[in-house]
Amino acid sequence: MRARDIAEPFPTVSLDADAMAAVRTMAAERAPGLIVCGDDGRPYTVLPGSQVLNFIIPKYVQDQPGLARAFGERASDELSTKLVRHTVRDMVPKAADADEIPVVHPDATTIEVAAVMAKMHSPLVAVVDGERMVGAITVSQLLTHLLPV
Amino acid sequence: MRARDIAEPFPTVSLDADAMAAVRTMAAERAPGLIVCGDDGRPYTVLPGSQVLNFIIPKYVQDQPGLARAFGERASDELSTKLVRHTVRDMVPKAADADEIPVVHPDATTIEVAAVMAKMHSPLVAVVDGERMVGAITVSQLLTHLLPV
Repeated sequence: MRARDIAEPFPTVSLDADAMAAVRTMAAERAPGLIVCGDDGRPYTVLPGSQVLNFIIPKYVQDQPGLARAFGERASDELSTKLVRHTVRDMVPKAADADEIPVVHPDATTIEVAAVMAKMHSPLVAVVDGERMVGAITVSQLLTHLLPV
Repeated sequence: MRARDIAEPFPTVSLDADAMAAVRTMAAERAPGLIVCGDDGRPYTVLPGSQVLNFIIPKYVQDQPGLARAFGERASDELSTKLVRHTVRDMVPKAADADEIPVVHPDATTIEVAAVMAKMHSPLVAVVDGERMVGAITVSQLLTHLLPV
């Protein structure tokens, strides 16, 4: 069993995509994150959902979540305005290093995929053939194939 | 909209549960992780799928994933034996601190839930009423409710 046999379609967005559209995609697909592709079309980084929340929830609310109850309405409005006029590039953590994205070749074995996920503490790997993204593999999909029947 | 209205059932396991059974649950439910409950029944920590892989994939394979291709069969066997005769307790990271699990009260607002997820970089929060776990909220579920219609 190779990575190409397990890979499934996974939502990707470009760095210049509209932030609101990207977040809507994440919500609609029930995805825990999105794969962000760079200008060359190759996966550049993974944008986890928690990072989106980190972008849209004001720092003072994060510091004292209990306050959110009192500031609910105002915070909701700030949220929407924060996503409008921003791109995915604005939400991606600044320290993102292109080397950090978990990527495997379509020929990678299941154990190889598992090793990459384990090493990078990632719930997801992108399967990339040269310049083309074939799909992605989540940890639960992988476990299904790794476990003895 | 409160946490209790969004929370959905989420697979939980106890610390003393059989490791193999727990991993099968994660795979069958297509869950990115499991909520681990302590001896008192309250959520104790989250066991991410990548941590399971970290437990079962030998360190030398993690260090050089390319080697996995050559050692495929042997590594697969080691994997199965590693899960047998182990419990969830063995797979949970040793440094796990009970304070680190993202937990909210059923009355928490969506913004409050978002703040907790953002602060803790978690794709998931457990919704707990006293001693009872009501369910869990994933980041994509939350985004569905946070975004303007």
